[in-house]
Amino acid sequence: MSEAEDFLKVARAAREAATVLAPLPRAPKDAALRAIADALVAGVDEIIEANAADVTKARESGTSEAMIDRLRLDAGRVEKIAEAVRQVADLPDPVGEVVRGSTLPNGLELRQVRVPLGVIGIIYEGRPNVTVDAAVLCLKSGNAVLLRGSSSAYASNTVLVRIMQEALATTEVPAGAVQLVPGLTRESVGHLLRARGLVDVLIPRGGASLINSVVEQATVPVIETGVGNCHVYVDADADIDMALTILINAKAQRPSVCNAAETLLVHADIAEAFVPRALAALKDVGVTVHGDERIRAYGADVVPATEEDFFAEYVSLDIAAAVVGSLDEAVSHIRRYGSAHTDAIVTRSQAAARRFTATVDSAAVAVNASTRFTDGGEFGFGAEIGISTQKLHARGPMGLPELTSTKWIYTGDGHVRV
Amino acid sequence: MSEAEDFLKVARAAREAATVLAPLPRAPKDAALRAIADALVAGVDEIIEANAADVTKARESGTSEAMIDRLRLDAGRVEKIAEAVRQVADLPDPVGEVVRGSTLPNGLELRQVRVPLGVIGIIYEGRPNVTVDAAVLCLKSGNAVLLRGSSSAYASNTVLVRIMQEALATTEVPAGAVQLVPGLTRESVGHLLRARGLVDVLIPRGGASLINSVVEQATVPVIETGVGNCHVYVDADADIDMALTILINAKAQRPSVCNAAETLLVHADIAEAFVPRALAALKDVGVTVHGDERIRAYGADVVPATEEDFFAEYVSLDIAAAVVGSLDEAVSHIRRYGSAHTDAIVTRSQAAARRFTATVDSAAVAVNASTRFTDGGEFGFGAEIGISTQKLHARGPMGLPELTSTKWIYTGDGHVRV
Repeated sequence: MSEAEDFLKVARAAREAATVLAPLPRAPKDAALRAIADALVAGVDEIIEANAADVTKARESGTSEAMIDRLRLDAGRVEKIAEAVRQVADLPDPVGEVVRGSTLPNGLELRQVRVPLGVIGIIYEGRPNVTVDAAVLCLKSGNAVLLRGSSSAYASNTVLVRIMQEALATTEVPAGAVQLVPGLTRESVGHLLRARGLVDVLIPRGGASLINSVVEQATVPVIETGVGNCHVYVDADADIDMALTILINAKAQRPSVCNAAETLLVHADIAEAFVPRALAALKDVGVTVHGDERIRAYGADVVPATEEDFFAEYVSLDIAAAVVGSLDEAVSHIRRYGSAHTDAIVTRSQAAARRFTATVDSAAVAVNASTRFTDGGEFGFGAEIGISTQKLHARGPMGLPELTSTKWIYTGDGHVRV
Repeated sequence: MSEAEDFLKVARAAREAATVLAPLPRAPKDAALRAIADALVAGVDEIIEANAADVTKARESGTSEAMIDRLRLDAGRVEKIAEAVRQVADLPDPVGEVVRGSTLPNGLELRQVRVPLGVIGIIYEGRPNVTVDAAVLCLKSGNAVLLRGSSSAYASNTVLVRIMQEALATTEVPAGAVQLVPGLTRESVGHLLRARGLVDVLIPRGGASLINSVVEQATVPVIETGVGNCHVYVDADADIDMALTILINAKAQRPSVCNAAETLLVHADIAEAFVPRALAALKDVGVTVHGDERIRAYGADVVPATEEDFFAEYVSLDIAAAVVGSLDEAVSHIRRYGSAHTDAIVTRSQAAARRFTATVDSAAVAVNASTRFTDGGEFGFGAEIGISTQKLHARGPMGLPELTSTKWIYTGDGHVRV
């Protein structure tokens, strides 16, 4: 069979499974998730064996040890993956929730009810645990899932998907509801991107280049996730100690994640009091500052910032920094260079907080808090499939309800329009 | 200037206007809408003059009188357009609505608030009144709008947009918030479809071929609207008189609209009692029936249905019809041939109604009611920009809230992650 036929086969199987899965209530879905968790634990040897093959291949191709650590699975990690599956089973089911409802003047009863999206395509890089995480979030919300992971984890993903399918085969959820997209070539991704009618939505999880290529090529609707060039703006009226605490937390508490700060903006009126202390505090935690001219006036070891620095999502111990003349200038900078993920203001001024939250057009705006809180777990969602940085359908952390659509149901007793 | 430069100029003007418009509260937006209504009435002579040029051109190119009637504006129609604008001003503002909110365990106050989408591109065919309708719905929900109407209404649309811009110039809403996409060529649409970063969402309103070409080419996210191949399924347990009333209303009350029925499905157990009466009733109102073999057994003047008939959105006094062996077979037929707009069941059985509403995956599912109720006006939205037949962001009739996104705002007093 050709790759295109291989793809059509799994996509159709997912579509068919989706029609059986969609109307299922919570109990059989939770039972299926628990069966998956048990099967993963039971299959730990198989999983580790397949993963070892991926690790060997990665090492041979010169992958860094940091990346290999992300790829590697051991018994403890498999147990953690299974535990996360059980936690998803414990979450409420978004499907069936009545979002709105009314009785129309003519007596027609109208309800808007959450329903599954159908078939979700997840395109992701990195760790094989995402294979299981993404699959069970889709299943819990009544969706079938087509998984397209990184080629470096293909052996691991193949075994993980097979174990999930075998577990589902013992439950009311059809085994076909979880599918690995076959093939490792660029073309095999192309089939998924253009499978309009078979796939209802694509969620790319990864770096900006992955996401851009998906958006460029896809005819299936896409939810963009995750690129984070987050800003901390220190207002003229900021509490300096608070600003320092927030800055260091936002930048350095976990620099590798999308809600870490990548740019510091400082109001000119507070620059003299704040910037020298900020530079010292950033240096203490090992952060390199890429500053504009006015920042560089306060520190000899500030690297000159280029325009690329202000666009950058470093995901490392680097930060761009600039002095701005006003709050509005800070907002303009964020609009121009930011990724509309999370931007924070530190201020004692109610008026400044109001203007900043009203005019910064990002998925999340933080007032006197670290950007690191933009997270499904922190927001109390219990689970997160990603953080949407687009405006349609879902914006910010996406939990289970964001993996659903709605359906209008209206009931009469022979109602006709007049 | 080239066409591409012309487009960039208006798109950037819209983007800039959007940043001023987005944070405006309701009062100045309503005032701007009322200024537009007054200006349209005041400019009626100019509008009719430009429209007359469009009408002359259409007549010269052999356009049908029915289409010319849709294109034509007179003083009464302009007054009606202005009145519709005033009605939109009277609607509640979706922007600023707190969708969800909580205080997190650490004391962080979390709110999810409705915000405008930004810049909306509307691509539409047909009547020039859509130019004003679409523009004011976007403005009311805080969005700037790029309008790309039919080339047959270009002179009318040009004057309507200029009048709206001049009216806005006297208000707090920037005049640049309403823009006509310059040019009449296919390329001029292409610029709009690929204006990612400048345009936040595209809403095509028109036939299936327009919508498909937009989805195929766009890199900007699209909300698909309007194609309606709606079904009426008469269950084994239907009240026959009710089924006849609903069928005739759904098919014939206004056959030109997307929520009119295009296919009748009849359970085999009720076919003998129902189909002859249905054929007679449909004949009475001038409907041609395209039936499968089992339907044709009941009427000599039933036209044999091809597979294309079951896919067809006739938008005319035609209906496809088939006998099905079971409710599940009806659902499978709807999945295969339908457009997931609105599908109705007529039944006395609670179990049948439950199964139909659970398994039919359409924007709206009607129980013992005509498909014609799927409409923003009927649902009580006060206004409608279109009916979404996709699953992301909005599904079914779209009112003002569907023209918004959300933003998370969280407020602390120096909160950091631990």
